[in-house]
Amino acid sequence: MCLCDCCGCAEIYREGGEEKQKQKHPFHICCCFVLCCRPPKLREISWLLFVFFSSDIEISRAQSPKAVDVLAKEIGLLTDEIEIYGQTKAKVRLSLLERLKDQPDGKYVLVAGITPTPLGEGKSTVTIGLVQALTAHLNINSFACLRQPSQGPTFGVKGGAAGGGYAQVIPMEEFNLHLTGDIHAITAANNLLAAAIDARILHENTQSDKALYNRLVPVVNGVRGFSAIQLARLRRLGINKTDPGTLTEEEVSKFSRLDIDPSTITWQRVVDTNDRFLRKITIGQANTEKEFVRQAQFDIAVASEIMAILALTTSLQDMKERLGKMVVANDKKGEPVTAEDLGVTGALAVLMKDAIKPTLMQTLEGTPVFVHAGPFANIAHGNSSVLADKIALKLVGEKGFVVTEGGFGADIGMEKFFNIKCRASGLVPSVVVLVATVRALKMHGGGPNVTAGAPLKKEYTEENLQLAADGCCNLQKQIQIAQLFGVPVVVALNVFKTDSAAEVDLVCKIAKQSGAFDAVPCNHWSAGGRGAVKLAQAVEKAARQKTSFKYLYSLQLPIVEKIRIIAQKVYGAQDIELSPAAQSQVDRYTRQGFGNLPICMAKTHLSLSHQPERKGVPTGFILPISDVRASIGAGFIYPLVGTMSTMPGLPTRPCFYDIDLDPITEQVKGLF
Amino acid sequence: MCLCDCCGCAEIYREGGEEKQKQKHPFHICCCFVLCCRPPKLREISWLLFVFFSSDIEISRAQSPKAVDVLAKEIGLLTDEIEIYGQTKAKVRLSLLERLKDQPDGKYVLVAGITPTPLGEGKSTVTIGLVQALTAHLNINSFACLRQPSQGPTFGVKGGAAGGGYAQVIPMEEFNLHLTGDIHAITAANNLLAAAIDARILHENTQSDKALYNRLVPVVNGVRGFSAIQLARLRRLGINKTDPGTLTEEEVSKFSRLDIDPSTITWQRVVDTNDRFLRKITIGQANTEKEFVRQAQFDIAVASEIMAILALTTSLQDMKERLGKMVVANDKKGEPVTAEDLGVTGALAVLMKDAIKPTLMQTLEGTPVFVHAGPFANIAHGNSSVLADKIALKLVGEKGFVVTEGGFGADIGMEKFFNIKCRASGLVPSVVVLVATVRALKMHGGGPNVTAGAPLKKEYTEENLQLAADGCCNLQKQIQIAQLFGVPVVVALNVFKTDSAAEVDLVCKIAKQSGAFDAVPCNHWSAGGRGAVKLAQAVEKAARQKTSFKYLYSLQLPIVEKIRIIAQKVYGAQDIELSPAAQSQVDRYTRQGFGNLPICMAKTHLSLSHQPERKGVPTGFILPISDVRASIGAGFIYPLVGTMSTMPGLPTRPCFYDIDLDPITEQVKGLF
Repeated sequence: MCLCDCCGCAEIYREGGEEKQKQKHPFHICCCFVLCCRPPKLREISWLLFVFFSSDIEISRAQSPKAVDVLAKEIGLLTDEIEIYGQTKAKVRLSLLERLKDQPDGKYVLVAGITPTPLGEGKSTVTIGLVQALTAHLNINSFACLRQPSQGPTFGVKGGAAGGGYAQVIPMEEFNLHLTGDIHAITAANNLLAAAIDARILHENTQSDKALYNRLVPVVNGVRGFSAIQLARLRRLGINKTDPGTLTEEEVSKFSRLDIDPSTITWQRVVDTNDRFLRKITIGQANTEKEFVRQAQFDIAVASEIMAILALTTSLQDMKERLGKMVVANDKKGEPVTAEDLGVTGALAVLMKDAIKPTLMQTLEGTPVFVHAGPFANIAHGNSSVLADKIALKLVGEKGFVVTEGGFGADIGMEKFFNIKCRASGLVPSVVVLVATVRALKMHGGGPNVTAGAPLKKEYTEENLQLAADGCCNLQKQIQIAQLFGVPVVVALNVFKTDSAAEVDLVCKIAKQSGAFDAVPCNHWSAGGRGAVKLAQAVEKAARQKTSFKYLYSLQLPIVEKIRIIAQKVYGAQDIELSPAAQSQVDRYTRQGFGNLPICMAKTHLSLSHQPERKGVPTGFILPISDVRASIGAGFIYPLVGTMSTMPGLPTRPCFYDIDLDPITEQVKGLF
Repeated sequence: MCLCDCCGCAEIYREGGEEKQKQKHPFHICCCFVLCCRPPKLREISWLLFVFFSSDIEISRAQSPKAVDVLAKEIGLLTDEIEIYGQTKAKVRLSLLERLKDQPDGKYVLVAGITPTPLGEGKSTVTIGLVQALTAHLNINSFACLRQPSQGPTFGVKGGAAGGGYAQVIPMEEFNLHLTGDIHAITAANNLLAAAIDARILHENTQSDKALYNRLVPVVNGVRGFSAIQLARLRRLGINKTDPGTLTEEEVSKFSRLDIDPSTITWQRVVDTNDRFLRKITIGQANTEKEFVRQAQFDIAVASEIMAILALTTSLQDMKERLGKMVVANDKKGEPVTAEDLGVTGALAVLMKDAIKPTLMQTLEGTPVFVHAGPFANIAHGNSSVLADKIALKLVGEKGFVVTEGGFGADIGMEKFFNIKCRASGLVPSVVVLVATVRALKMHGGGPNVTAGAPLKKEYTEENLQLAADGCCNLQKQIQIAQLFGVPVVVALNVFKTDSAAEVDLVCKIAKQSGAFDAVPCNHWSAGGRGAVKLAQAVEKAARQKTSFKYLYSLQLPIVEKIRIIAQKVYGAQDIELSPAAQSQVDRYTRQGFGNLPICMAKTHLSLSHQPERKGVPTGFILPISDVRASIGAGFIYPLVGTMSTMPGLPTRPCFYDIDLDPITEQVKGLF
């Protein structure tokens, strides 16, 4: 009797959907949860108490993770292909890709969702429940590839992102805190570049060409020479000289001055903290900066373009090139100024040299997980890394499964997964798992507001078939969006204890009528992988279908045309409307040669439209594009739909009120 | 023929001081530097070329570090006492202190320096050279305990801090970059607290008592309860209630409002980047912050009080208490507001739970090194962690040596080591090694300015006995300062190739006449441990002396009196002069009950006085105290002498111009 099969005492049970099976007691437990050796009756009672009164972190702690080197060996990694970080985490070297390059890829599954409530619908738990079911219960190799959570939400409102209940990554406190330092590395790299921009403007403003040049190319031990990155800049400027003494006055000036127009700076500083007072600031007010003040802002670290690069890069060489290409501002002639122009490419690559390696962890049932990169899906492209997926697809082998997650609703996370991430990787997805909850569907059907922190209204805790049926319009629309890309959809209905059997049946029926390959109720939160076995079977079957994957738009189309296609086909907008500022940016980027990039929409996740309060399937709206930005290193154009905040804030009572550390046992409390 | 004794081909040689030995060729090499198997002549030529044309990072890379688990085993650590981070770094668990509590401590050596030039005099290389000599050449157990360098200087002007030449910590790129993430953890904790302060002020300003209380103590699943940290706050407020429904209106208001006076906020945000434009900023300018703008600043991360706490703490329990006690502002009645009042103690402790464990690395000759904490010595207390020293003193055993370093000149780093760090730890130092260079002594003797980046004047590259002799006044004064504490001094003269034998002899002679136990020329930079054998022998002999260690002042003295004692006895000031602001802060801290803390002076490191241009031994000056701050969690009062910048800037040509990453070999270039 076991949830995780660790001691061979497993006994299959099913729950949800079919009544006769719901009568069977679903909770069993084995030695891995410590309670196994007690007498059967006492054991069941203990277990019930444990399930109902345990927090996510208590469940996480009740299961001892296997040593990460043991896990690495199990999945076929060689000793010199991992770098261990403590007992439960390891970085995996990219050399693996070279060793396994002739191995065929496994099946590639994306977990997406319907338009969510602010409480989230459980995509992470479905992702983890699904791999637990595949590997621990159906003996099929699988890997979950997840995003690293930002510390902002962990200490703010939302809490961590390790999954929950019996579908978790463990140890969840490692997952939710510093992990292996990737977000810190991104912060350091991002802010070094930001400091370099302002310092350079100051130095250019306060020095003559000659003084600047003498400082940029100093005499060291009697010798004067350009550094490698300066020689590269000379070549870009068309100055084919290598001896610093031979430059003409004009060439000295051209080389020494980036001539950045401060009003065009798009590179912002970042912190991985919900610090609302940094949303708009004035910098440079100390006397030492000689009155070169300007307005600036801090974004949350995961919104950094460097995070997007980490998620989309395919090798160290590619990452270094992308870092160099990042455009931070325009010069006074309107030409782009890059990180490479500032001489900082190498330093950024050095700061990111370990972050590029995915981090290996495990689920509660001991199956492997990669955690790598964590852009938000509303203000960034919202998907974990290409490299982790690529490595995992090799490791699971041809018959195995890699399950990854696109942030928020399918209109955002999935659309960007297909059009941006799959384009960067060249990988072809096999199946979309679309996560729905009766709760969110009722909201789309006209139910009252759902607010984080406030108790749920009775519409959500009592049976209401009409609301659920009405809300299925959103589910249907999201299924149709996935079908635009030619990929089969399996709906995973994440069942809560307040959902009635009739509601569950109804939603699954409508989902299938709406074009889903299958629709399956899931109970992974309370039952782990066992509760997602039917989902795993449906996904396995769907993956055997022939797919005809296609992108939604051609890169060759004009920027505005690409935005319009997403707005109309995905969001259901009547049309788009660009502000004059947005139009002028589009013109600028097109002129600068960046018109052929894919589009990364920054849009609310709470509605298919730009208006969070419009639930269900809004129609007849004109999507306002207030501004357009470009992430040239990451490789996308970034239109802003209305106002999007890139820095969350702390509420009156942040999560940290409940977080504590026991100084004797060293155990963390209150993370969830 | 070997520098590191790794293959038993060692042949002792000596250099500097005694002419007959300088005739002997000093450079030999063995297999660990790859060149050993070549024919003798070719080997010597190769080696000479290697020495003269190699950068620090090339030397670092030429030596393969042993696996850190092998090193850990060699020094007596058990498998479950280390947490490995990659191949060459490991965190060491504090449980070790409990296991070894009955083991007697080894000898405790502080490396301090004379007043330095802006180029530094080589304290880190002496520290590493000394342990290499002790362990790899004299077979005496030893440990070096070093500070983790800030990334600011690494990418700014100064470069890294791993030592240099043949006295380095390896791999130096790991040492100089993210290491095991401690500074990132400090940054995250520091900035979470900063965000909590401003968000709290905003929420208090925009809500009624009742609304605040309802949000601070919400109903969750039908139940309303205080969190543990809120119950603790109630107890501090003298409200002995645990049921949220029973508080009176007055108690609700008292509980819910911290009533922070924004003009008194002393807690600043930090980044580990030299970002001069953040020295003075205005925050809160977005509409969402409802015009609660205020002036603020970012400091470099290593200036955070949390860094000072990490360096001074003795256990997880102690660290948590110190974090909670940190005073961030005053309320409108003038009472201190702490991190504990903001409900964030537990979260800060959780963020710092791994940072509290020292990181184990190794020298170029394979001897053990702890890297832990890294406060600057001018704006903070400038010493590595108490915990690393304590663990190392147990590990080396009674006859072993732990060598640690106090930042900048002895007037700063050493004074704070004795009065602050030794007070926190209760440890008693055995010997002070005082590092001097002929170059710095000539500057103190009246030589021209020494500036980073500019070529040295001929006074420094040619023999000049008069300048050297005149400058010895600074060396003598620093020896006398060490003697105030009753600890014997060994002078280590860090020999450069431009120093003449006569200069070296003269300085050593004057040092001994000035009260040093011994004075020894050292060549560890070019020769590794072998070049510091005489120093190691002198230190070993000095450590056999009876010491009568004493603090410089009693904690019971008034704050102003303690400042005066340091100013007069250590700096040689005639008196001190407090600004009205400083006096009013002294009065406030005394009234608040913080008068009994030790003093951490924030003073320039470039002179014994407050005026960087006054070299030698300045006299007759009045030390101006412009402001006085308090780090209550770290446990010291922090007077500012004149203007001290807490945020370095990037120069026109920062170090990062030379830093690069080879994407094929993954090797870092240009770090030094």
